[in-house]
Amino acid sequence: MAGHDALPLVVLTEQFAKLPGIGMKTAARLAYHVMSMEAAEVEEFAQALQNAKKTVHYCQCCENLTDQELCPVCEDESRDHQVICVVETPKDIAAFERTGEYKGTYHVLHGLISPLRGVLPDDLKIRSLLRRVQAGGIQEVIMATNPTVEGDATAAYVSQLLKPLGVTVSRLAFGLPVGGMLEYADEVTLYKALENRNII
Amino acid sequence: MAGHDALPLVVLTEQFAKLPGIGMKTAARLAYHVMSMEAAEVEEFAQALQNAKKTVHYCQCCENLTDQELCPVCEDESRDHQVICVVETPKDIAAFERTGEYKGTYHVLHGLISPLRGVLPDDLKIRSLLRRVQAGGIQEVIMATNPTVEGDATAAYVSQLLKPLGVTVSRLAFGLPVGGMLEYADEVTLYKALENRNII
Repeated sequence: MAGHDALPLVVLTEQFAKLPGIGMKTAARLAYHVMSMEAAEVEEFAQALQNAKKTVHYCQCCENLTDQELCPVCEDESRDHQVICVVETPKDIAAFERTGEYKGTYHVLHGLISPLRGVLPDDLKIRSLLRRVQAGGIQEVIMATNPTVEGDATAAYVSQLLKPLGVTVSRLAFGLPVGGMLEYADEVTLYKALENRNII
Repeated sequence: MAGHDALPLVVLTEQFAKLPGIGMKTAARLAYHVMSMEAAEVEEFAQALQNAKKTVHYCQCCENLTDQELCPVCEDESRDHQVICVVETPKDIAAFERTGEYKGTYHVLHGLISPLRGVLPDDLKIRSLLRRVQAGGIQEVIMATNPTVEGDATAAYVSQLLKPLGVTVSRLAFGLPVGGMLEYADEVTLYKALENRNII
């Protein structure tokens, strides 16, 4: 930013630039946009920020984000509480909910094990998952971390802790994406699709 | 957003999505990022928003954004107050200041005449420009609107109002790529355009 900008505008630009995927140019554009917004709109935005941070916390059961004691999924008695789908982030839950097909519960790890980035098992919400399974009544835990090196490693680590507890541990199937073109599939995906082929 | 997200998070996502160039996916990503920020950081962000909107207003002289009565350029006595460079937005001033070559003052129109979008001359800060020139002491007004249809039309309109007042009115040279945006011009191009300005 040029030194001739009003200071509060520079401060706001720097705040926007702290957000992921937003560079200085975009941040400046957003800051100028805020200047053209109504005062009431800006107030609403600021309050939404404060309100979200203040009232949203982790669900006592599944570690998903919620503003209640329990998240809507954990509170919903019509769902199958014998099945837990373990995901990396709350966003993954939204993806599963969009399918409309999954009726079990979730557990959010809030990260993946990654020694190179300094993320160790203790930094994830694994202990609360083990407590849920130890409390009994769980039949199956589905490891639904991303099919990446870190996602696979985390799934393997967590499943090793879960197996002695007597639950079925499963992993999402890997194969060709529906609607995808064989021609454009990468080697690993194609290999997985071949390996996990089903009799028809 | 899925209906299973905590409400304050949905509200925050919608606020982010109102910003220009930010869709629902990016907005959701930003909202989740806010959740992972420290409470103090979120508070700082919210205050930067409120503070910028509350304290930043238009300069009494040139209509640039400032948190003082006069912007730093209008207040600077070492600058040439006989020359006014008329621009569309405060961002354009930042671009000129980066060249380090322009020593005059500015005037921000805050838009361009565009009947199709319902922007008429009265919606722009043209009257305050005329008042500045009528007050005397101005030798030259440089029309530095973007080299687009609307920018040219606005420059022509404003220069017709200015000429009877006995000032020299000039237009930035066509060193700028036609159809390009002033904001993204490199320093040298912008300096050349300034240097080769033509009397109109």
